[in-house]
Amino acid sequence: MSFWFADGARVDSLPLDDRAVQYGDGLFETIAIRSGAPRFLELHLQRLELGCKRLGLSAPSAKDVTRQLAAAVSQCGIDIDFAVAKILVSSGAGRRGYRRPASVGLAIRIGVFPATPVAPASYRDGVSVDICSIRLAIQPRLAGIKTLSRLEQVLASSEPREPEVFEGLMMDTEERLVCGTMSNVFVVNDNQVTTPAITRCGVAGVMRQHILSLLDRGTIGCSVIDIEAERLDNASEVFLTNSQFGVLPVRRIAGRALDVGRVTRSIMSQAATSGVIECAL
Amino acid sequence: MSFWFADGARVDSLPLDDRAVQYGDGLFETIAIRSGAPRFLELHLQRLELGCKRLGLSAPSAKDVTRQLAAAVSQCGIDIDFAVAKILVSSGAGRRGYRRPASVGLAIRIGVFPATPVAPASYRDGVSVDICSIRLAIQPRLAGIKTLSRLEQVLASSEPREPEVFEGLMMDTEERLVCGTMSNVFVVNDNQVTTPAITRCGVAGVMRQHILSLLDRGTIGCSVIDIEAERLDNASEVFLTNSQFGVLPVRRIAGRALDVGRVTRSIMSQAATSGVIECAL
Repeated sequence: MSFWFADGARVDSLPLDDRAVQYGDGLFETIAIRSGAPRFLELHLQRLELGCKRLGLSAPSAKDVTRQLAAAVSQCGIDIDFAVAKILVSSGAGRRGYRRPASVGLAIRIGVFPATPVAPASYRDGVSVDICSIRLAIQPRLAGIKTLSRLEQVLASSEPREPEVFEGLMMDTEERLVCGTMSNVFVVNDNQVTTPAITRCGVAGVMRQHILSLLDRGTIGCSVIDIEAERLDNASEVFLTNSQFGVLPVRRIAGRALDVGRVTRSIMSQAATSGVIECAL
Repeated sequence: MSFWFADGARVDSLPLDDRAVQYGDGLFETIAIRSGAPRFLELHLQRLELGCKRLGLSAPSAKDVTRQLAAAVSQCGIDIDFAVAKILVSSGAGRRGYRRPASVGLAIRIGVFPATPVAPASYRDGVSVDICSIRLAIQPRLAGIKTLSRLEQVLASSEPREPEVFEGLMMDTEERLVCGTMSNVFVVNDNQVTTPAITRCGVAGVMRQHILSLLDRGTIGCSVIDIEAERLDNASEVFLTNSQFGVLPVRRIAGRALDVGRVTRSIMSQAATSGVIECAL
């Protein structure tokens, strides 16, 4: 079940000559709707703006997107206490050919979906993750932003996995840890928290940014650095972040058991206090 | 002006929950229609099949695609003496999330467009090309095939260019020559013809394959190798291939003048004889 809107009106489809269809030429944001309101909307709009800038598109006005999002959420008719909204921005209709027309008319579509909560046991005991076979290509021009050209994530997510595996971690082609297929990752070694710098590939998630700001304000801190496989192998704690589920401890990586430790617990508790209610134990 | 068809019936749009829209999860082929018939259809269908295999999708039957293409071409109502058909294959409708549903239902759409001929002077005197600023990321899993996730080509094609520049050549992130934004490239040094191996990134074009088979059968030959910038800098002749325009000589690369030489002329003549009529001078 999903409901899509364009400027407050229900729509089901996009023209075939839209450049999202033809070339993945656009961006999206996936926003948690909690108690009827979009969570961390400002951070999502900031990333969308950055993405437009990187793609050479004029960003839509934050005011207009906010208005369209509110209209979609209020009209969707599904339970908006706990839902997901997706903002899809494409470079719009185009003639055949990669080059954009001289005058680009952005197409904005808003989808609202029921959200699926992650089981309380996963927040308490952690989730199991694997390392994906496919590597992320190094393309600094697209690093950090959330484009519609997502085949690497599609292939990573479609790799065969044991049913209990919740997420796949992705390395880049130079064997650095980058992120999960749908999440960011934090690694704890000797109580030092690190998370991969998202400068060559990968998506810089909104929840990652929120957790980074909590860590910066607190006593734990976090270094944003290049993370080689060895650091991950030696980690004492690992946790995932994502705009929908918040923070989830990892209890197993590719078969190796990990503790759900003190640092992860502390960050989950801070996240819960700051509005990421899913993390409250 | 464009006309899109699904199974012989006119369509204008794709459902918003189609994975082509959401994730660029699919493939396309752009086929020259000459005198009402698709050119090199078998090669296009072979690449489509390879692409499906690489993406983990069951390829549509060649017979079905051929039938749908013929129906679209016969019904489009535009001049099919000289037209372009585009076959778009997506992994179809999906729920939210990168992972494909257990049962994938491919969506096939066929578009028919009027073709724009390249000026005779360009075949005779050559075209001017530049080197794009953006580099192609190295992702062997997607090399050679023509996916719907094409942001690198979009950004390359949208770089500012002098109006007389016909095409942009693309290097990979390790500074090897790969291809043009919409073409493949052949380089001649001391009468030795080479073309980049498309193993790390780039699209292996159907016209490239046709020209390679002509070269293999003839006396000129061609080596498919890694091409560093230096080889391009020292080239005596360079030419481009593409399914629509056939073969075009390059007369200028980033300001450096080149001759339209004997080797290029010979290959254009062979191409013309083999059915690529645009190359007849």
